[in-house]
Amino acid sequence: MTVSLVGAGPGDPGLITVRGLELLRSCDVVVYDRLVSDELVEETPSDALRICRDGLDQDAVNELLVRLGRAGLEVVRLKGGDPYVFGRGGEEVLALADDGVPFEVVPGVSALAAVPAAAGIPVTHRGVSSTVTIATGHGADGGEPDYDALVKAGGTLVLFMSHRRLGRVVDGLLAGGLSGGTPAAAVSSGTLAGQETVVSSLAELPAQAVGLAAPVLVVVGDVVALASRLAPARETECAV
Amino acid sequence: MTVSLVGAGPGDPGLITVRGLELLRSCDVVVYDRLVSDELVEETPSDALRICRDGLDQDAVNELLVRLGRAGLEVVRLKGGDPYVFGRGGEEVLALADDGVPFEVVPGVSALAAVPAAAGIPVTHRGVSSTVTIATGHGADGGEPDYDALVKAGGTLVLFMSHRRLGRVVDGLLAGGLSGGTPAAAVSSGTLAGQETVVSSLAELPAQAVGLAAPVLVVVGDVVALASRLAPARETECAV
Repeated sequence: MTVSLVGAGPGDPGLITVRGLELLRSCDVVVYDRLVSDELVEETPSDALRICRDGLDQDAVNELLVRLGRAGLEVVRLKGGDPYVFGRGGEEVLALADDGVPFEVVPGVSALAAVPAAAGIPVTHRGVSSTVTIATGHGADGGEPDYDALVKAGGTLVLFMSHRRLGRVVDGLLAGGLSGGTPAAAVSSGTLAGQETVVSSLAELPAQAVGLAAPVLVVVGDVVALASRLAPARETECAV
Repeated sequence: MTVSLVGAGPGDPGLITVRGLELLRSCDVVVYDRLVSDELVEETPSDALRICRDGLDQDAVNELLVRLGRAGLEVVRLKGGDPYVFGRGGEEVLALADDGVPFEVVPGVSALAAVPAAAGIPVTHRGVSSTVTIATGHGADGGEPDYDALVKAGGTLVLFMSHRRLGRVVDGLLAGGLSGGTPAAAVSSGTLAGQETVVSSLAELPAQAVGLAAPVLVVVGDVVALASRLAPARETECAV
């Protein structure tokens, strides 16, 4: 009986880890997030129990994992991206650890670098940026992020956020001192066939990205300017 | 003919992606970093050419990849972690793109969250930290990092660095205003069987970590305090 938190990766099912896929293929139960790909859920054995966590709050998920683990089952908790990068995996593991249920954490490819990469943006690049700051569109208390701190961090900013907060977050970054001309990108459905990318200046990003499907990953910084040279062929074709 | 930059992941060979392993198993040539695991290099076909990039400077690696790609070979450039997180992958892809050689970038699990996870540290945790800043022990110009900016960023700091810079970097962070009592950890050989972890206060970290093998990943911030509750059994056993 082990409950394994497995990162599913950024979207493309080929980006799960070998270890994660091995656990999926041998589990008794999978508890999965709505945004992970169907192909991965279908990798579980045909008699495995497949539970979508939609409609369950975090406490209910924690309790479910503890109960399944205590029942002696091999459980995979399949989470988008990486379990510990805005995945609330720590809360789930705390519940398991406090109850004495054995657990394993299998990291995943986080969207933080993989989604920019799929749009031709390296989050670090020699001579351009050697610092990356990752945040959400909300502060730790659920209010506004500390825009001054995000701007002062320098380097590349990667923001996991809901689409409708984009205008407010851009206003905050501009008020915090970032230039409106800073290169910026918003990527929707990153690494998937339906990926859409908007590259623009920071000031114009909200208007340019208005048609993108939620959620979006936003990248701000000079590395974004490399996208015109590094975007995969798929992207270049779309832009012509 | 495609040159594929493939992230090997943080150390444990099971943490490569399914797509990355598929490319390795069908390539004509692999050009690999010294720190990637032998098991992965040995996944290439027995008649594949295996080239360690040790001793080649970055320009020579770029030129090698272009020449192999132009020769019509299926090439895997196997890099530790993720190609675009301090991997200099952007430089290699720029060389390929400028020469018209088709390329693919397959992201990998970066050490940035996977190595802390293997030590029981979630880089984000609700109510504790919702921002992560990633940097090296050097600034963009090769000099000192901008310690003031790193400290003002708040949240969790993850530093990829050489072991012998640890004392200097800690001094810089303390001078930048971080409290000496801030929880901090240094992890060597993260995710591998030989993993060693030191958890301490920031001020005491250099003295505590003096025996660790290089390179180390350093994590600074309140999330480190969770390690005592979330560390995998292997770690807990070692600590007893």
